[in-house]
Amino acid sequence: AGDVAAGQAKAAVCAACHGADGIAVIPGYPNLKGQNEQYIVSSINAYKNKERTGGLAAVMQAQASMLSDADVANLAAYYASLK
Amino acid sequence: AGDVAAGQAKAAVCAACHGADGIAVIPGYPNLKGQNEQYIVSSINAYKNKERTGGLAAVMQAQASMLSDADVANLAAYYASLK
Repeated sequence: AGDVAAGQAKAAVCAACHGADGIAVIPGYPNLKGQNEQYIVSSINAYKNKERTGGLAAVMQAQASMLSDADVANLAAYYASLK
Repeated sequence: AGDVAAGQAKAAVCAACHGADGIAVIPGYPNLKGQNEQYIVSSINAYKNKERTGGLAAVMQAQASMLSDADVANLAAYYASLK
């Protein structure tokens, strides 16, 4: 499982759209607060692998391409930990 | 915007994976409780349009293919309404 504190540090960029507390600032974007850790990992990897396309997926493809596997695990642990 | 009561009725099938209360029964699946209505619409349509592939996306492609635009709107309204 990922490291919550490392994930929180890495989440500064994510917060621009997904909110400082994991509640999205724009209705078209998903809330991540309390989302399932395993699902967050698989969805970030789906963007990274370009298995999610269309609409705003290009934004997340670009962001995900800059994340290591450890970053993904840490971000997932962080957002899953928010209550 | 969608009709919450109609969405709740339609959500019986969704509940098998996403939970009766929108909290997924399997960690690999996303919670939908309180998710942004507009994001739910766009993500279901992404599955319907086969813009999400890989992993378990085939499951949602099949489910989404059976939903009308009204069904999608109603389901989104319902899950977004859960607190």
